[in-house]
Amino acid sequence: MVVELISVGTELLLGNIVNTNAAWLAEQCAALGLSCYYQTVVGDNEERLSGILETGLGRSDVLILSGGLGPTQDDLTKETAARVCGKRLVEDAHSLARIESYFKQRGLHMTDNNRKQALVPEGAIVVDNDNGTAPGIILEKDGKRIILLPGPPNELLPMFEKSIAPYLLSLNPDGAAVIYSRTVKICGLGESGVESLITDLEALKNPTVAPYAKTGEVHLRVTARAADEKSAKKLVKPVVKELEDRFGRAVYTTKNGVTLEEAVAKLLEKNGLTAATVESCTGGLLAGRLVNVSGVSKVFKTGFVTYSNKAKRKLVGVRKETLEKYGAVSPQTAQEMAVGGAKAAGADVAVSVTGIAGPDGGSEEKPVGLVYMACFVRGNVWVEKFRFNGNRAKVRESSVAAALTLMRRCILEVFK
Amino acid sequence: MVVELISVGTELLLGNIVNTNAAWLAEQCAALGLSCYYQTVVGDNEERLSGILETGLGRSDVLILSGGLGPTQDDLTKETAARVCGKRLVEDAHSLARIESYFKQRGLHMTDNNRKQALVPEGAIVVDNDNGTAPGIILEKDGKRIILLPGPPNELLPMFEKSIAPYLLSLNPDGAAVIYSRTVKICGLGESGVESLITDLEALKNPTVAPYAKTGEVHLRVTARAADEKSAKKLVKPVVKELEDRFGRAVYTTKNGVTLEEAVAKLLEKNGLTAATVESCTGGLLAGRLVNVSGVSKVFKTGFVTYSNKAKRKLVGVRKETLEKYGAVSPQTAQEMAVGGAKAAGADVAVSVTGIAGPDGGSEEKPVGLVYMACFVRGNVWVEKFRFNGNRAKVRESSVAAALTLMRRCILEVFK
Repeated sequence: MVVELISVGTELLLGNIVNTNAAWLAEQCAALGLSCYYQTVVGDNEERLSGILETGLGRSDVLILSGGLGPTQDDLTKETAARVCGKRLVEDAHSLARIESYFKQRGLHMTDNNRKQALVPEGAIVVDNDNGTAPGIILEKDGKRIILLPGPPNELLPMFEKSIAPYLLSLNPDGAAVIYSRTVKICGLGESGVESLITDLEALKNPTVAPYAKTGEVHLRVTARAADEKSAKKLVKPVVKELEDRFGRAVYTTKNGVTLEEAVAKLLEKNGLTAATVESCTGGLLAGRLVNVSGVSKVFKTGFVTYSNKAKRKLVGVRKETLEKYGAVSPQTAQEMAVGGAKAAGADVAVSVTGIAGPDGGSEEKPVGLVYMACFVRGNVWVEKFRFNGNRAKVRESSVAAALTLMRRCILEVFK
Repeated sequence: MVVELISVGTELLLGNIVNTNAAWLAEQCAALGLSCYYQTVVGDNEERLSGILETGLGRSDVLILSGGLGPTQDDLTKETAARVCGKRLVEDAHSLARIESYFKQRGLHMTDNNRKQALVPEGAIVVDNDNGTAPGIILEKDGKRIILLPGPPNELLPMFEKSIAPYLLSLNPDGAAVIYSRTVKICGLGESGVESLITDLEALKNPTVAPYAKTGEVHLRVTARAADEKSAKKLVKPVVKELEDRFGRAVYTTKNGVTLEEAVAKLLEKNGLTAATVESCTGGLLAGRLVNVSGVSKVFKTGFVTYSNKAKRKLVGVRKETLEKYGAVSPQTAQEMAVGGAKAAGADVAVSVTGIAGPDGGSEEKPVGLVYMACFVRGNVWVEKFRFNGNRAKVRESSVAAALTLMRRCILEVFK
């Protein structure tokens, strides 16, 4: 089955926003085992959108549209799709009641424009929107489907996961009623290194194994299709196990949705540890990433941004002689930052980052991208040297991922 | 003149990467005064790419392609475009020399694959790539143009700015040889508020005024087309001046490329001030954003992440009674964090952020999204209350932008 993604919105054509919906939908469709050969962006223009729909119906089985379901005059995706399918719009009582209740719950006034959102093409399947006023709509024409989704990601994502993915599976001619995937997340290994160890698994057909590279991480998504969830899980399980065996401790989670910072927070909590951060070139981004974790306050209480030498001395007790003799970007300074940070914060674990993020400040001896990190864990200290590529933002982002990876590794060495 | 963007790459179709190139190119084309009605993503597949090229040539004047110019077998954008234009590929001596020198300078071995990158369609315009091995290529067919650009953003962006934008301008039938734009950046005002004050200016034709909403900011891009740069600047200047008059101090820069954190850093430097940050819910992101500025070490030396009450007391001297009586998320705590942070860091300015980022921790009295901030500037203190919408990440991102805006406003109040 071939799907095609069509994003509707002038703001995409003007480059006001980046098309993250298309990337997300593409990843979901790939995981569902659907082929996708085209993505198109078109404006809120009836003639051009009609043309794109006709073309899409000629070459794909399912068209997934996003955007243009809003209450304003500009929004004409629904009207255009209905016309292409030869359907008239009728008011859907169920959707109208939901929209009315949406406004009532929020104490907001409902306008006539919003009433327009309850109009749906005759005979269409209406999909509830739990996070907004525009329902999703599924139309059929000559055995092909047109699926209309709202544009805002916080409405589109949950609607797709809850209603559209199961619907797409139900269309499958191969009898696979469910799709099930788990992601094995690996930190501290490069993409090419990981890929070279899984070429045999990448050739598998069911489940499939697909790598996704992130900064400092590689995610391996294992996806199976089967008649029921139990069978799908049974297909996925041994491959996840095999990947865990191959990558060992570099695997920080095999649970869906868990981030590296969550894995680190959980590891701290499990071992009854608190952690502190001491940052120079990352300037707070490492602490900021730990605080992505809701409830991290149990294990993370204090962070120091010691951007100047004076702050390094005053806040975490780096010695003047160390800074003078070895410089701020040195293994010695990194070590004293971590040890002193743990002490100043009264934490069990402390990780430090000091480096040259660029574009200025590099030298032959200490080039841009050189970063030292240290991790203190209850009396033990590890120091690591890194050389990252890329611009200032990239060096800092890579440093944050490496610091989380270092924390995890050091804690695991002490608390097996 | 109508342009169309075509992105080539299977990794886009699979959702492995987000199509940031298309958004960036779309914004550039809009600034150049070019209309764009379609963006398409297609895989590295000759048949489908040919079809997209044929369709594009039928409805647009210029097709801008990105991706598929690499050295591997998968990369076939150039070959396909040449075939569609009826041209054969010939080796371009100039490009070959550049590629050879690229490898030599880096001490890398050049493979036969890379030699393939010096092949160009007969009669095409070859555009130098200053950051990679694939040259850009401009083909002509029946008065229409096909422009091929390399996919990596660090190659595509500079090539477009340096060579493609001037080329596109040169095609202009209206005699405008240059395009010139300046962006008036506004902080602390909402998008709808800004737009309501510029409806008259949005109707202008030359220069045009286009708003772009960012978190906590609105950017107004003023773009003129003219026969020469001097005339274009002359058109832009009075409109920029008018916008400055209308938005007053909310305008933080009218210089291209300056960010809010840079404007704040510059303001600190100009007034001989140093600043510190004291963060709770943002957890380091505010400091991290200041450190985006290369050379910020002159004015920013210390940041505190005081995520726990104990850290607030120990690091920046918030009183136990204040925390007990008013809670961590309160104007009183925010104020003591800022005052204590300035003192602990020995800084002239300190800004504090304490709030409920969610999803947990909210109550009727203190809901998710409630954030207090304070700013200390040489003995003066301001406290502000905010109520942000969105999820945890959005609340924190909005808080960072608001904290920078608050810093700027308070400094300006003391140092007119």
